[in-house]
Amino acid sequence: MLVRALNEKRAVDVPVDRLTTDVREILNDPEISLVCEFMGGDEPAAQFMLQALKAGKHVITANKMALSLHWRELHAAAEEHRVGLYYEAAVCGAIPVIRTIKESMTGSRIDKIGGIVNGTTNYILSKMTENNLAYADALSQAQKLGLAEPDPTSDVEGHDAAYKLCILSALCFGKYVHPLQIRRQGISKVDIIDIKLGLQLELTLKLLARAQNDNGYINSSVSPVFVTKDNQLSHVSDAFNGVLLHGHACDDIFLYGRGAGSWPTASAIVGDMIQAAQFGADMLPHAVFENISAETTDSNRYYIRLINGSADVVKKIGDLIGKEQITLHTLELDGKSHCVLLTKELSEAQYNSLRNEIEKLTGAQPVCWPLEGSV
Amino acid sequence: MLVRALNEKRAVDVPVDRLTTDVREILNDPEISLVCEFMGGDEPAAQFMLQALKAGKHVITANKMALSLHWRELHAAAEEHRVGLYYEAAVCGAIPVIRTIKESMTGSRIDKIGGIVNGTTNYILSKMTENNLAYADALSQAQKLGLAEPDPTSDVEGHDAAYKLCILSALCFGKYVHPLQIRRQGISKVDIIDIKLGLQLELTLKLLARAQNDNGYINSSVSPVFVTKDNQLSHVSDAFNGVLLHGHACDDIFLYGRGAGSWPTASAIVGDMIQAAQFGADMLPHAVFENISAETTDSNRYYIRLINGSADVVKKIGDLIGKEQITLHTLELDGKSHCVLLTKELSEAQYNSLRNEIEKLTGAQPVCWPLEGSV
Repeated sequence: MLVRALNEKRAVDVPVDRLTTDVREILNDPEISLVCEFMGGDEPAAQFMLQALKAGKHVITANKMALSLHWRELHAAAEEHRVGLYYEAAVCGAIPVIRTIKESMTGSRIDKIGGIVNGTTNYILSKMTENNLAYADALSQAQKLGLAEPDPTSDVEGHDAAYKLCILSALCFGKYVHPLQIRRQGISKVDIIDIKLGLQLELTLKLLARAQNDNGYINSSVSPVFVTKDNQLSHVSDAFNGVLLHGHACDDIFLYGRGAGSWPTASAIVGDMIQAAQFGADMLPHAVFENISAETTDSNRYYIRLINGSADVVKKIGDLIGKEQITLHTLELDGKSHCVLLTKELSEAQYNSLRNEIEKLTGAQPVCWPLEGSV
Repeated sequence: MLVRALNEKRAVDVPVDRLTTDVREILNDPEISLVCEFMGGDEPAAQFMLQALKAGKHVITANKMALSLHWRELHAAAEEHRVGLYYEAAVCGAIPVIRTIKESMTGSRIDKIGGIVNGTTNYILSKMTENNLAYADALSQAQKLGLAEPDPTSDVEGHDAAYKLCILSALCFGKYVHPLQIRRQGISKVDIIDIKLGLQLELTLKLLARAQNDNGYINSSVSPVFVTKDNQLSHVSDAFNGVLLHGHACDDIFLYGRGAGSWPTASAIVGDMIQAAQFGADMLPHAVFENISAETTDSNRYYIRLINGSADVVKKIGDLIGKEQITLHTLELDGKSHCVLLTKELSEAQYNSLRNEIEKLTGAQPVCWPLEGSV
């Protein structure tokens, strides 16, 4: 076992002769046929995994960052050296999403995925929704419980979700989109007002990682999205994760469970270890993993809250984009009246032009979030 | 392909030289290494599968009845002849529940399963709940849509669910309980009144297949159960299926999707075919499949509706079993008042004695259904 220092205090007793501070002792040991990597972070984890694969060792990892950033190199090395690369624990902890995509759904063409893949942000949004907390208060509660890091950036700005979406999307579509190319918006700008207004419309705000195969172009994004009650993702609360997969033959498949924590992660890793011990190299054919840029256009339904809305403004907006394209809701909250528009599917161009017109009419940028489901 | 008659009209064109009416042409053909069985029913399907396995052919089946009734023989033949026996489509169609239990959850001890494994009954209960239909009307609607058979017994009385529960429970616990030994109650006695009263208490009635490992005894049942909103099973509507699995390390894992239909079933079967082609014999160690009787005692929480309830009767019941054991709800429905008790966990003996006492006090048997979740 590679450790930083031999004499550190550990939660589990490990005989000191099983420890080393020199990775070469593991990489050069011909007796070791399987390596588990739990260091986290990009380097040196990625190089250690590459070297292990090249030395003919199966690799099991929970490291979504190294895996998503070095996706092609790692898979190419595994294929060339005929060893297995297993990573069920890297995405959504104990939820069997990797195996479901790679094994169970081989009979379906997957065209769409949507997931709550980050437990920290789901906990924060759940507490804002259920306990009426402001973002900062919900974050600090998550930090006290150890669910959020002292520097929460990677979680709350959606980086962690983008790493996981890159992995899921590569497996589902055989196309690799670099995590930095995924459109990404975190939850730090979410206003409790919109969560409360959403509840009045039976909408729940969730940080969704979404990807869709549009005739070979992959549209992927991480963003807060309002979800209707008939969508299984709306029932994923607290630190739980959930992934909704759509295939042409299987239709919707939804998987739910614990996305993090030492026991759920260990459960996924032991599952991978047993499979690696039995099947060795992952014999499923590797997808081509074509390298593509993320598509930049996207069509969506939207929730739009007007700042300084008035009956007159709303009428003008209706005239502008056609009344059949929007439904208008005037909602009361804490003695104040709010104008919320729910739109039908808009192209990115339509959406941008609508935002500009609203800003011209009201003198302020409206608050907008995408919307999933039938309202 | 084995067919009843060569010249029948088929939805898909199959060249007539690929058809036969004699199963021996398939079983004795050394070129055929993999057999898919879609005949349904117990015999002759079970004997054909056994013969195929003994002839060294992998078998893929969607036949829960033959599989659950001949579980040990079929597995023993597969093991002896080193061939694979795959049956993802036999339980919950496209939902990857078999693979999740056999591969993904090997790192966890599974102690409890609960599932909505029959789409027909879930459709009927959903329509009763959402559209306020009586049982007979909802059944006839399901029959018109082809979701229920002209003779609906196997679905509505829970036989189909018991076959599936037998398979899930054998895989989860390594213990085989014969489907006829599973306590079973269908939905034909469900009164729309209780569905409506349940909704007032935020409870949804679902036909659940449940099994639990109590220190080596397997407690299994198929029965209508009231489910609270915090339980993922309460959000499974229409003809969808869902299975909730609990393991000591992974905690809750919930899987949801289409449990029937030609495309979802085909998706699961193709997944099995690809895996069989790649891995051949299922190399995972077969569990011992100890043959056991289902345990007869069971503890549960209960929903109990009094017939002829009165304040006086309720007081006496409270005195009888201790007020901390029940919460009392007086509910109005269509101008009539109803007394509903929600109990804490009761042993089977406590439950039976409570029912008897209520019958003595009110002169009528109360309506009782088990209850899952925290109210």
